[in-house]
Amino acid sequence: MVTKHRVVSDGETAAQQHYGNFHSTTRSSSLRHEQFGLETFHARLGRPNIVFKLWDGFTAGSYENSIGTVTFKNRLVLYQLLFSGEIAFCDGYSEGAIDIEGNLVDILVDANVNRHSREAVTGPFQKLFLTGFLRSKTLRDAKKNIHHHYDIGNEFYQLWLDDEMQYTCGYFPEIGLTLEGAQLAKMDHVCRKLQLQPGDKVVEAGCGWGGLSRHMVKYYGAHVTAYNISQEQIRYGSDRARAEGYSDQIRYVEDDYRNIDGTFDVFVSVGMLEHVGKEQYQTLGNVVEASLTEEGRALIHTIGRNVSRPMSPWIDRRIFPGAYPPTLREIMEILEPNRFSVLDVENLRLHYARTLEHWLQRFESSNLEVVEMFDERFIRAWRLYLSGSIAAFLTGGLQLFQVVFSRERNNEIPWSREHLY
Amino acid sequence: MVTKHRVVSDGETAAQQHYGNFHSTTRSSSLRHEQFGLETFHARLGRPNIVFKLWDGFTAGSYENSIGTVTFKNRLVLYQLLFSGEIAFCDGYSEGAIDIEGNLVDILVDANVNRHSREAVTGPFQKLFLTGFLRSKTLRDAKKNIHHHYDIGNEFYQLWLDDEMQYTCGYFPEIGLTLEGAQLAKMDHVCRKLQLQPGDKVVEAGCGWGGLSRHMVKYYGAHVTAYNISQEQIRYGSDRARAEGYSDQIRYVEDDYRNIDGTFDVFVSVGMLEHVGKEQYQTLGNVVEASLTEEGRALIHTIGRNVSRPMSPWIDRRIFPGAYPPTLREIMEILEPNRFSVLDVENLRLHYARTLEHWLQRFESSNLEVVEMFDERFIRAWRLYLSGSIAAFLTGGLQLFQVVFSRERNNEIPWSREHLY
Repeated sequence: MVTKHRVVSDGETAAQQHYGNFHSTTRSSSLRHEQFGLETFHARLGRPNIVFKLWDGFTAGSYENSIGTVTFKNRLVLYQLLFSGEIAFCDGYSEGAIDIEGNLVDILVDANVNRHSREAVTGPFQKLFLTGFLRSKTLRDAKKNIHHHYDIGNEFYQLWLDDEMQYTCGYFPEIGLTLEGAQLAKMDHVCRKLQLQPGDKVVEAGCGWGGLSRHMVKYYGAHVTAYNISQEQIRYGSDRARAEGYSDQIRYVEDDYRNIDGTFDVFVSVGMLEHVGKEQYQTLGNVVEASLTEEGRALIHTIGRNVSRPMSPWIDRRIFPGAYPPTLREIMEILEPNRFSVLDVENLRLHYARTLEHWLQRFESSNLEVVEMFDERFIRAWRLYLSGSIAAFLTGGLQLFQVVFSRERNNEIPWSREHLY
Repeated sequence: MVTKHRVVSDGETAAQQHYGNFHSTTRSSSLRHEQFGLETFHARLGRPNIVFKLWDGFTAGSYENSIGTVTFKNRLVLYQLLFSGEIAFCDGYSEGAIDIEGNLVDILVDANVNRHSREAVTGPFQKLFLTGFLRSKTLRDAKKNIHHHYDIGNEFYQLWLDDEMQYTCGYFPEIGLTLEGAQLAKMDHVCRKLQLQPGDKVVEAGCGWGGLSRHMVKYYGAHVTAYNISQEQIRYGSDRARAEGYSDQIRYVEDDYRNIDGTFDVFVSVGMLEHVGKEQYQTLGNVVEASLTEEGRALIHTIGRNVSRPMSPWIDRRIFPGAYPPTLREIMEILEPNRFSVLDVENLRLHYARTLEHWLQRFESSNLEVVEMFDERFIRAWRLYLSGSIAAFLTGGLQLFQVVFSRERNNEIPWSREHLY
């Protein structure tokens, strides 16, 4: 399989050729280095059932039992990969310098499986979606991070989210449920866990496009004050509440959760904790402490981990700046200092994998519209992000925790969880 | 109300008189000190709605709105109380040097409520059932600690436990359920959480008198290997399994959980973690790791806390040597190092209060039999222990956590919790 002569790929630029030449005195020794690099990389990943292929046809890994092929289309991306790992891989895929044939999710699952079975080995692929994070230390940083992800256009999210614009894990009482059904079921599950009653005063920290607040008003008769620092989401939520006639029961506040003001029967936060930053957990706990009545109920819904680890550096850089999925132990840092009592924890990991499968499917069928909004690189990056997330939930690298809690002295708690079912 | 002349109570001994005189030059100044001590003590507790009374009739606290009276019948017990707090109070009550009129549980609840509302103040009553612990560092220590509590006689526990001898929190799907019904419901709840199937191999760490193992065999067709270091309990369990015809499906092992050997579909431990000792949590996690199949399910049921705090020193000394109720954060020390994934946490705090109410009621109606076995002091100590535990569960000082977990990579987990209801 070894090709003696160096083949310049179509995508290779003069700078890339220079980069390659810079590291080798002759073309053939450069190529041998690259073949060795590819072999080493494949071995470091625990030899997954994936064929790795160079621009010249050289391969590492066997086609037998292979579930797919990853092609490195030029010299630069390979060197970048060996040097900077995950970011280079994901950027390379997004830019088209890396191609992947086969089912992307299956390939990422296989890479994760091999990563797990070779704990001690570290490598770029192995850390995929699993490892650096920025912190939302100041209110301004938090706003910048959130703007990066959520203000890229409501129209984009409308293409592949459900009608209620739920960009968090759905709940599938039956696995065959539609995405719309699962998101309604998720909101009901949350409302039941919170024993929501007509007239209840609710504060929501990080309300997204306002789907849950509308649901709480429409089906449970609650009064909701909803905080969010994304201007686009707040505008969408307000417009829609007005259009649907709920304006008098929902107050949208474009502000940080740290500025929550007032006393409420219910505190709820679905999908915000990932953006809060570990060093702010006690602050968040103090906010709940200050805003909850004596018999108030609280729920935090968040992506999490079994073991503490930073977010994937690529996800952090390209998709979700400042995101961090906490362990249950870390979540206790919100609750313990204020003596909150954990009543119920549910892990919906596989429900998030299923939700993401729906999103990916809708995203792929909306490619043409997405290209009009952004470009091919954006599509490839988001495909990788959604697929990698499915793989992480399927292989246990990510969890989805719903934590219900109340004050220690509150005996007005549900006697059992039967009312949820 | 101040009595000028010192009254020697019936219960006072020569030594006690000496102890009193040692601290004062005249009888009247001694008495003034004692009255001041009583007032101070009442104030330090946050002025509960309880009248404190000296042997001579002097009182602190008002009879108006009072829910009961605590009488210190001699000088020694008062000085001991001011000096060593909770142990002196509980021993004093057990020995009859302190009398309590009114509902003991209500009085202890009121004391806890006041403790909570005056966080900064520390005092003896305030720490009641809430604070030193011995550790089961060595296998021999563990055996000694367990012998202290569980080997005091099966006949004693038979007087007030249910038919299946469940000395752990029951589960009341309806609050009016009998104790027998609640204990059966608890065992079913545990088996359902573990998705127990016929033929499953189960290992139980700390099996008590074997009720859960018999239940798993009888109703679910499981095969159980059950570990316990209490000789009396193991003997009882083995005899009963033989009598009921389950000997071939249950193997009772009189040994420490650290010596668990083999591979199992299910790991279960109900009411053992309290006796394990924090410094052994990683060891326990390693035992589960070593004994669980790839798709195995595990459940730990334990008394817990919202905030880390040692066990009550009196409970530790007189009732449960070496006991420690962990926080959820501390429980994560068992799970995190082995990458276990938490699937479900339920807090059954109020169910334990209800269970204890049943136990207390049966215990009180068996007093005559208990006196024949032990003595009046034993009865008073156990009354205080059971009542104080009810108060702790009712006021949130103690929690009851059921934690279900599995390996991170196991996707054969329940899709939802609907099968529990």
